[in-house]
Amino acid sequence: MSLSERVMVIGAGPAGLEAARGVADLDRQVLLVESKGQLGGTPYEHYATLTPHLRETGDVMRAMLDGINSHPLVDVRLETRVVASEGEAGHFRVTLENADGQRTEEEVGAVIVATGFSHFDPGRETQMYGYYEYDDVVTLVDAEHMMQNGRMVRPSTGEPPERVAFIQCVGSRDRQIGNTYCSKVCCGIASKQSIEIKRMLPNAKIFIFYIDMRMYGFWEDQIYWKAQEEHKVNYVRGIVTEIIKKGDKLLIKGEDTTMGRPMEVTMDLVILSVGMEPSRGTLQMGQIFGLPREPHGFLATVGEPLDTVSTPVAGVFVAGAAAGPKDIEDSVSMGGMAAAKAVGLLNRLARALV
Amino acid sequence: MSLSERVMVIGAGPAGLEAARGVADLDRQVLLVESKGQLGGTPYEHYATLTPHLRETGDVMRAMLDGINSHPLVDVRLETRVVASEGEAGHFRVTLENADGQRTEEEVGAVIVATGFSHFDPGRETQMYGYYEYDDVVTLVDAEHMMQNGRMVRPSTGEPPERVAFIQCVGSRDRQIGNTYCSKVCCGIASKQSIEIKRMLPNAKIFIFYIDMRMYGFWEDQIYWKAQEEHKVNYVRGIVTEIIKKGDKLLIKGEDTTMGRPMEVTMDLVILSVGMEPSRGTLQMGQIFGLPREPHGFLATVGEPLDTVSTPVAGVFVAGAAAGPKDIEDSVSMGGMAAAKAVGLLNRLARALV
Repeated sequence: MSLSERVMVIGAGPAGLEAARGVADLDRQVLLVESKGQLGGTPYEHYATLTPHLRETGDVMRAMLDGINSHPLVDVRLETRVVASEGEAGHFRVTLENADGQRTEEEVGAVIVATGFSHFDPGRETQMYGYYEYDDVVTLVDAEHMMQNGRMVRPSTGEPPERVAFIQCVGSRDRQIGNTYCSKVCCGIASKQSIEIKRMLPNAKIFIFYIDMRMYGFWEDQIYWKAQEEHKVNYVRGIVTEIIKKGDKLLIKGEDTTMGRPMEVTMDLVILSVGMEPSRGTLQMGQIFGLPREPHGFLATVGEPLDTVSTPVAGVFVAGAAAGPKDIEDSVSMGGMAAAKAVGLLNRLARALV
Repeated sequence: MSLSERVMVIGAGPAGLEAARGVADLDRQVLLVESKGQLGGTPYEHYATLTPHLRETGDVMRAMLDGINSHPLVDVRLETRVVASEGEAGHFRVTLENADGQRTEEEVGAVIVATGFSHFDPGRETQMYGYYEYDDVVTLVDAEHMMQNGRMVRPSTGEPPERVAFIQCVGSRDRQIGNTYCSKVCCGIASKQSIEIKRMLPNAKIFIFYIDMRMYGFWEDQIYWKAQEEHKVNYVRGIVTEIIKKGDKLLIKGEDTTMGRPMEVTMDLVILSVGMEPSRGTLQMGQIFGLPREPHGFLATVGEPLDTVSTPVAGVFVAGAAAGPKDIEDSVSMGGMAAAKAVGLLNRLARALV
């Protein structure tokens, strides 16, 4: 059977887009499969702006999206899912299904899985934050949608909030709900949002309740110091144990661990910093390609820390948050590395045939 | 002038090694230039074991090192420095100088700068931790060297310590000394070392004094929980303001910010978690290739967060900690991405000539 020199990239978020561009720039054909109706993935769909520079997502991603759409070597299939695969490195026969239920078979030589994460559902397994009970308890994602619409309001009244609280680590660092990992980006995103809310509502008071502020690298001063010094965001080290309704406000109960005392504060809007879990597509691709999952449920890689993209299945690579909590920089770096690895593998297979 | 299809990689740590392997696997010649006498970079030279699995560095890196040494497309130049460069993308003429002072000229089409970081010198600009005064105040790196030798002792006596303190953020998150960024990996390395010390000295008491434990992603349970639950490492949120000698012990003064009270504790050994700064090689390559530095002094990239490796100079890419604080996973991912970008650029230049 002849070697297929084409690489399939599954998922068109930052990791998948960089992987596709990388493979195409290495003069190989790419089959880019995306289940949604547009390119860009979770950041493009759900985030108004991106860390670290708080620029609008569309502006940041436009060149990347245009580059893929116009690249003669990239065959983009939107609203399409991978439903089956057989074969092996150099010779995968994959079955795709489009939105109309039509199935096609494609041959590809290597596969890059970039199917990303989904946000933790704060109603799942824990009721303590009242996400499905109280209109004014929202998630980071809901807050981004409000920013996309240019209106930051209390959903219950449509009025701008005066006091806003972020609660960190919702669905992360939590043995009880089963997610023992840190989701890596929520500290950065909450801090970014706090700056944006202050820009929209200069008189609002913002509180971020946290265990550790994981503002690693340049985020420390680019976002964290900026939030505190320029925008007077209040960071409170504490544990929130309960949110209840009090009149038309939300009463947050817990402990301020720096002050070492119980805490009861009222808020107009509570934003839950929900963490990352493997997306449905990530779980499905794991099954279809026989990829083992690591103990947290994401797709396992081999050879860490020196290899971030190889899976135990030859010819199948992973990039981005399908392999665990990743920021955008992680995701694009992994996408680029996966492109190099996939094409490198096809080169080796081609030489072996000569 | 004819296009040079060879890629020069400068620096042979994890980022440079992955970049070199990536380029070679893409069937291009690599000129790998390393100023030291061996491959492997800072982790291989200075670290006994690596995060996240605490495996010995030699074991972890052996396959990577062997792969580079045996690759027919990689021309390794040890004890060699880049001392000058002229030309442009596709046509760089670089001058190398070896340990004997002999100079050669080489033509390369693209350059990947992977010259890494150096550890913050804790005697520089701040005397408060007594690094150059007290034998029993050491750095993370000194501790790794002791582990490489299989002997964790108080340097003053040669005896094993009973009480060991780590002080986090030495040379990081500190406006006074001028490093306003977080160095990203020190929390993980200190926690890794604390586990290793407990394995060597089960009766030792270990304390880690920190501002925030930045154990992002899987480090949270892989290292942080493990240190606390299996190895009974004591994490103390606090600020250390002074270390003084008291008899043959070290007295640490500061504030326990969780308990909200002053703190005075004696220790046998103090390990300073020193952060990252641009290495001398990184600064030199910045000058030689005309690469601007970002506000913290590392080499600037363009297009972040969607491009982690492109510099403002066409044909010159950066990978790893030359661009800022990076963990090993970041570094290899960037190395792989830089390989794809460098070869992709040479492909485009070659097509433009046809």
